[in-house]
Amino acid sequence: MSVDEQAAINQLKELRALTADENGAQRLAWSPVWMKAREWFQSILHALPVEHHLDAAGNSWSTLEGASDATLILGSHLDSVPNGGWLDGCLGIIGAYAVLRRITEEYNGKPPITIRLVDWADEEGARFGRSLFGSSAFASTHSIDLDRNRTDAGGTRLEDALAACGVRIDAIGDAACERKNAAAYLELHIEQGPVLESMDLPLAAVLGTKGVERHAITFHGQEAHSGSTPMNARRDALAAAAKLALEIRTIAKRHPDAVCTIGSVKTFPGIVTAVVGRCEATLDQRDLDAEILATMHREAQEKSIQFAEEEGCTVEWSRIWNIEPVPFHPQLIELCEEAIRETIGRSHRMPSGPLHDAAEVSRAGIPTVMMFVQSLKGISHNKIEDTLEEHLKMAITAFDKLASKTIDWIRAQ
Amino acid sequence: MSVDEQAAINQLKELRALTADENGAQRLAWSPVWMKAREWFQSILHALPVEHHLDAAGNSWSTLEGASDATLILGSHLDSVPNGGWLDGCLGIIGAYAVLRRITEEYNGKPPITIRLVDWADEEGARFGRSLFGSSAFASTHSIDLDRNRTDAGGTRLEDALAACGVRIDAIGDAACERKNAAAYLELHIEQGPVLESMDLPLAAVLGTKGVERHAITFHGQEAHSGSTPMNARRDALAAAAKLALEIRTIAKRHPDAVCTIGSVKTFPGIVTAVVGRCEATLDQRDLDAEILATMHREAQEKSIQFAEEEGCTVEWSRIWNIEPVPFHPQLIELCEEAIRETIGRSHRMPSGPLHDAAEVSRAGIPTVMMFVQSLKGISHNKIEDTLEEHLKMAITAFDKLASKTIDWIRAQ
Repeated sequence: MSVDEQAAINQLKELRALTADENGAQRLAWSPVWMKAREWFQSILHALPVEHHLDAAGNSWSTLEGASDATLILGSHLDSVPNGGWLDGCLGIIGAYAVLRRITEEYNGKPPITIRLVDWADEEGARFGRSLFGSSAFASTHSIDLDRNRTDAGGTRLEDALAACGVRIDAIGDAACERKNAAAYLELHIEQGPVLESMDLPLAAVLGTKGVERHAITFHGQEAHSGSTPMNARRDALAAAAKLALEIRTIAKRHPDAVCTIGSVKTFPGIVTAVVGRCEATLDQRDLDAEILATMHREAQEKSIQFAEEEGCTVEWSRIWNIEPVPFHPQLIELCEEAIRETIGRSHRMPSGPLHDAAEVSRAGIPTVMMFVQSLKGISHNKIEDTLEEHLKMAITAFDKLASKTIDWIRAQ
Repeated sequence: MSVDEQAAINQLKELRALTADENGAQRLAWSPVWMKAREWFQSILHALPVEHHLDAAGNSWSTLEGASDATLILGSHLDSVPNGGWLDGCLGIIGAYAVLRRITEEYNGKPPITIRLVDWADEEGARFGRSLFGSSAFASTHSIDLDRNRTDAGGTRLEDALAACGVRIDAIGDAACERKNAAAYLELHIEQGPVLESMDLPLAAVLGTKGVERHAITFHGQEAHSGSTPMNARRDALAAAAKLALEIRTIAKRHPDAVCTIGSVKTFPGIVTAVVGRCEATLDQRDLDAEILATMHREAQEKSIQFAEEEGCTVEWSRIWNIEPVPFHPQLIELCEEAIRETIGRSHRMPSGPLHDAAEVSRAGIPTVMMFVQSLKGISHNKIEDTLEEHLKMAITAFDKLASKTIDWIRAQ
């Protein structure tokens, strides 16, 4: 009995035709297009003997009851960013379905353990700015009191958008009951970065999701006339920020997988005839190792103070957001590598820079691993997001092997 | 017969009371407050036997006819930026009035040469973005065909604002007739920079106005996910711009009076989770020496190309504006230094970074010089713009001496 990769690819294309326009996928969470994607997926699931329900946070659960209550969860998300790609999230859902179908057929609808497929609600957070919505409710790490007053660009409140989809904002914590009997969680996802392509590798086992330190940094100097202020009399806030923009690269490059990014710089008054009096920058730092992340954060702060002093400026930091690194389960990482090696002859391990629902599941104490498949040009969240079909097939085959290995691993416990 | 510095200071304060609010001076050109300032100044001029008229560009001329047609022009501007200071422009007008009054009294209304006082229209260009409006019409260097369609923030067209003040846009070139018999032009102005204060000097002779090269520079890299894109796979447009922001300081510091400024940096998409794909910067370079200016411009271009290559980016330049350096008249600079030395015992020479109406007059071939008086903290275009009263008095005394020396110089020709 083998997994049907071609059927999975056909379903991905069918979903794309149903939910994308000329600008890309439009499966924005809590929107009619997203609801349509979920209805379409239900119509496919009807072929299998599964129980289905939405949990209190809008996560969509399909359960194939097994001989034992011990449960393997396979999951990802159907929602997309606006103008998104055809694989981000969907590959994990359709891939999980292919595996669920293979298991159903192999065990005549009664596998040795229970298998569940979950479509997490609002992974992207693209509409209300709160990503990992459903999986954080599941993991009891949600922050609904802080998120309650979020509105979308049109002014719709999160609470009302949820209600329109049958989700009561005050009850989302009840999704935690879905954790019962969960023995492992597996998620297949596109890499969304250029690493595997640059190494000419189709697949990798994911070590975990990097922790993130995200800060707003403001340098205060002195606005001055660009014509009348000699170079040595300036307190140029941009100069201090420019030094930091270069230094964060040195800080990151001390560690093999670390990244540091200044994504936004704003200058004030920001006119051609004035030395910059105030410069606002954002810094995003990530690593899988909490100590490395803390070191990079401290180094960036120290250097920013040094550069401010050198330029006669002052500097202020304010945290935008942070999350600790989430390492995945060591034995599941081993199983993932085995499955990849058996499929394509070689394997690789890498951390994930982007966050995923798997991080929330892992934070809830459920053994978790992800598998990545190569992204062409490293591009995602864009209509040109793509992966070679042969790589998609390898990914579904390897993910199916991982599921089998994980079932054995759960049964052996 | 000596110049009345105290009366001049009193008049400056009177003008401030009449045309400033809690945010500073509001004598925006072509506005009711500016018209009020001009009316007030006319009421003062009535005490002198001068002929008065507005020229075709709205410049306000007051002429004390002398024994000879050879003419010494003293001038500056009454208009201010919004929320401006009490001295920028006004000091030159009130100082010139003090000198005109002293000459009138000394020669019983008939000096050996003709003396004219000019209040240039719209020096600041604060409303329509076209500075040196009136003086460039006088000098026939105006660009009215390019400026015709300018509008202010409220959508009013330049043409209509001029018409409301009695100026026909198509006729402004006729202001050139005011150049007749002009033998020299003198202008007193605050420094608007920190140089004299840092040298503990009240006054300086101005060598000329620096030339300006003003460009928009855009680095094109590759937008990428801040979490999934390894440091060595990035094409970070901000990194290239940051290198240039630091390099322009090295370029400027090779020359004693040169300045280079990046006043605006914009990042795209400009979000915390994306490597900067496009970075737009503005560069303003100034020096009194045309060769130095050209060298600095070339060096910045070369370095920007180098930095773009280093970062896997490309770079585009587009000129926003430029003007050649305008050196003032060597003999008038000498006279200006003499006048300063006789007043305060020592002197200094310096270029002007900001542009002034004097630059346009000089470009018209009229021997020109300016005198600077110290600005406190180097601040101008701001309500806290200020100069010590003792320095204002020294400035008016020295400017009066310069006028006398220039009259002698004109007579000797």
